[in-house]
This record gives sequence, structure tokens and C-alpha cells, in this order.
Amino acid sequence: MTEQVTINDVGPRDGLQNQKKVLSPEQRVSLVHALLAASVKHIEIAAFVSPKAVPAMAGAAEIVAALEGESADLAVLIPNEKGYDLATAAGAQSVTTVLYGTDEMAQANVRMTMAEADAATVAILERARADGVECTATISVAFECPFAGPVDPEVIWDSAERFLALGVDRYVVADTIGAANPAQTRTLMETLVKRHGAERLACHFHDTRAMGLANVYAAASAGIRRFDASIGGLGGCPFAPGASGNVATEDVVMMLEQMGFQTGVDLPALMRASALAQELTGTAPGGRARAWLERNVAA
Amino acid sequence: MTEQVTINDVGPRDGLQNQKKVLSPEQRVSLVHALLAASVKHIEIAAFVSPKAVPAMAGAAEIVAALEGESADLAVLIPNEKGYDLATAAGAQSVTTVLYGTDEMAQANVRMTMAEADAATVAILERARADGVECTATISVAFECPFAGPVDPEVIWDSAERFLALGVDRYVVADTIGAANPAQTRTLMETLVKRHGAERLACHFHDTRAMGLANVYAAASAGIRRFDASIGGLGGCPFAPGASGNVATEDVVMMLEQMGFQTGVDLPALMRASALAQELTGTAPGGRARAWLERNVAA
Repeated sequence: MTEQVTINDVGPRDGLQNQKKVLSPEQRVSLVHALLAASVKHIEIAAFVSPKAVPAMAGAAEIVAALEGESADLAVLIPNEKGYDLATAAGAQSVTTVLYGTDEMAQANVRMTMAEADAATVAILERARADGVECTATISVAFECPFAGPVDPEVIWDSAERFLALGVDRYVVADTIGAANPAQTRTLMETLVKRHGAERLACHFHDTRAMGLANVYAAASAGIRRFDASIGGLGGCPFAPGASGNVATEDVVMMLEQMGFQTGVDLPALMRASALAQELTGTAPGGRARAWLERNVAA
Repeated sequence: MTEQVTINDVGPRDGLQNQKKVLSPEQRVSLVHALLAASVKHIEIAAFVSPKAVPAMAGAAEIVAALEGESADLAVLIPNEKGYDLATAAGAQSVTTVLYGTDEMAQANVRMTMAEADAATVAILERARADGVECTATISVAFECPFAGPVDPEVIWDSAERFLALGVDRYVVADTIGAANPAQTRTLMETLVKRHGAERLACHFHDTRAMGLANVYAAASAGIRRFDASIGGLGGCPFAPGASGNVATEDVVMMLEQMGFQTGVDLPALMRASALAQELTGTAPGGRARAWLERNVAA
């Protein structure tokens, strides 16, 4: 039996928002097209946030419009109901909201308390359900906060229980600053899978401490079958000191495929998307899947 | 209950043998001293191999002499009985021999068959036991060979059974080219631990495909409590195309300590050894433990 794993590439959003070099909407659309050409079926394509606060994310509506009709789940990040209005007016069919593991991170990121960010997601979720829009909730700093330190797993377990009960389509546990260790990941995710099943759960890791793939493996061992990753290892969070790139999509695909999972992703085509990410930004580190590809796949 | 994990730094040997810049014996001794200052108690300090074939390892006897009397397990790599003669004449008290997972790798590395390499270890082991010298056997390309492809785990299980029965002090399963995935590691090592206990087993990983720490975690989950690693991620194998650096000692220590294991290693001092490795070679990538240290330890 071959198990499927879903890959959600967050490179065009999480990966690019922290780049000093601001890419045009056209360039970002070209990156999404490269991912679609590699059969990546879930992509976070833009963020409806203030272009003043995050200039790298300007032009979100253009991006949504340019990608209309693609047969893939193309999600946009929104911080609040205003973002929801803009996103749906632009034609977005899938939105991602952000919850927080600590008040300190919520304040730094969106000047809200955790409870206020929770309330924003509740309001968005109600509207999304009424509108038939997919709604993913991602909980930021689920393991450790750069301001407040380690996060009690009970906070994440409670949050997941609440939002899964409210009907989010997905609940993503995010190690925003790349601080989680795999033993911690396994414990946290095993409990969630036991309580709720894996179907609506996902994980999001950064490779700050070189433990990115170790955490993906630990979460997969706990039963998680959906992962965020960022093409070429693009990434970082502008409001989270110490965060570096997301795990590289090509490396996550490589490891999972080697372990016998099916991702449905075309890895040689994905390497071309990674090369494009590196070319466009000049800073994406690039994954290390090439070492495997050169040996095992006719690229 | 806090479990101990033993760290064996192979940087001064495996890490340096492939460097284009050849370090003097004095420089290599300075690196060993930096590791000793970080309370690393097991170090592979030199190789008694042909200085013509591996110029970077010239001066092994000098290195052994310079480090005489240090209260640590300082091992030297030897390919054959001639190496054993030279090593013990120099005063070495601990030797590492190399077994092979494939004939192709044995031929490329030492122009022997697997059986000839096995026989060399048997002969060395007999003498070591008679002389009271520690003898570690490391099986190279235990997961995948750059020439022959994937290695059947049965080969490794049979080899381990034989050499553990013959009385090697340690049997090290080495992913020489950094090709193992963590699911494979877990399966291979769980079987060995079940059959033989973990006491005389160890693992050795390279980070070629970014799965180094994932493999350390998988092996630790299987019960392994001893790991080779290389300070600063120094490494590579001159006779194994596609191999890149060993897992960085500082990253292995960081991850294991975060997971609640005790390594006994002084991480801030280890970071100084890593800086020295980077300074001496100009090529060591350096680990990413600093991201943790800066947040959690007063260095």
C-alpha cells in the first residue's frame, strides 16, 4: 500500500515575504506556474496584507486574477476580515488565517492578542463556510516563540480542538522559527492525530537548526500526511527574529518519496521551479534533492 | 531518567581526509585539543594509510605521539595489518577498521573484495584483543553504494552478527555517501538493536541529502546511543563520488540535548572547535547549532 502525502508549497507567500529583493506580481506568478508544471496541487500564492507593512506581498489581487481557472488549490493568506473582503473580491477560493501560540508573537505580527487573532479566524471561518471558500488555520510559533520561549503543547491541543470543531478545512501546526526538535514534534502531533485523525492536520517546518527534515519525518511517523514546504528553501518571517528558510519543497518530496510515500509531484520539474526561485531571488539556498536526482531519476 | 549518548568526533580523520587543503599534523592536533576542551571523549584522530594515496592523513604517528596521555578514547583508522603495526608502534590504544557493504566499494577504496576486507578485520581484531587494544569495525556504504546502488539490509545484519560475535568493541553502521532515509535507518537499526542490544552499536551519517539529523533521530528512536559526527560538518570520502560532509557534531549535540539526552559535551566550547575547523580548512560548512545557542546558552 502506497500512502499519499500532500505537499503545499508556501514559497510564493511565506518564502518571498521576507526577501529584500521585491519580486513583481508577474515574477511571482511565473514561480507559481513553475510549481503547477511540477504537479504541485496546493500552493499559497499571495497575502492580502498591507503593502506598506510587507512590500514584497503587494499586488495580491493581480496574482489571484492571473491564476484564475488553474485546477489547483491556490490559497491566499489573510490576517483579518478586511483581508477576506479583498481576497474574495479578487476571486480567491481558498484562504489561510493565522492563529498564534503566544500573545507576544500575535502582538509582534498583527498587533492583536491571541484571543483577538482567534476571533478574527472565527469570523472569517463563518463567512468562508457561507461562501463555500476553503479555510485553513495555521497556528504560528506552535513550539517556541522568539519572544516568549517554549510553548506549552496544551495551548496547541486546545486551539486545534476548538478550530477543528468549528470546521476549519485544515489546521496547520507551524514551527515558525525552526526551533522544534523531532521528539517534541512527534509527541505534539501524535496526540493531535489520536484525538482528531490526520485528515485535516498538517505541519509547517523551517530549517533554522538543520532539523527541518527530521521534523517532517517525526510528523510523518505520527501520521501526518500533509506538509507545507517552500520551493528552494525560500523563507523566513519578517517579525520573527532568528527564523530562516522553510524546509525546501524538493527535499521534502525527495525524502518522502524515498520513504515510499507518493507525493504526486514531478521532482525533475520541481528542480526547475527551485532553479527559478534561486534565479528570481538570488538568495534561495536551494534544496539538496539534486544529490538524489542525479543518481536516481532521469531529469 | 536522562539517557546518555556518546559522541565520537571523526572530523580530524573522516572530516579532513578529503580536504584539498592539507593540514599539518600540528594543526590537526590543535583541532583534537579543541575537541578535548569541549569534553568530547571519543575522537578519531588519524589514519595509518599510505600518505601517497591520502596526503591529508600523513603524519599519523606524530599525531598519536603528541596526544599520548590524554584521558579520552583516541582512535586511529587502519586499513590492514600493516596499519595495525604502524598504529600500535606509535602507541595507539584504539583502532578502527573498515568493512564494506559491497565489493564495488571495497575495490574502489582498498582494492579488496568484501571478504578480503572482512578477513583483514578478523586478523586485526585477534591481535587487538591479545594486545588489549580497542577495536571498532565500521561498515561502509551500509545503505547505498555509489557504484552498486542500494545495499540489502541482510548483508549488514549478517556482518554485524558475525563481528559482534567475534568480539569487536563497537560495530558502526555508516551511511558513507549520505543516501539513507530515516525510515530505512529505523528499520535497519531496530533489527540490530533487537538482536544484539545497543551497547556495541553506533551510526555514522553524512548530510548529502539534508537527511543527516533525520537519520540520527531515526537511529536514536531505534535505541542507538552512539553517533559519529564531524566538527563543523567537515567531511566527504575521496573514493565515494557524491559523498559530502558528515553530520556536524555541534548539530548532533544540539538536537540530542534538546531531545533530553545527555552528551556530556560542552556546546559553547564545541562551537569554538567548529570555528577552528572552519578557520583551518576554509571549507567546513559549520553546523547550525548557533541558532539554538544564541537563544538558550550563555556562550
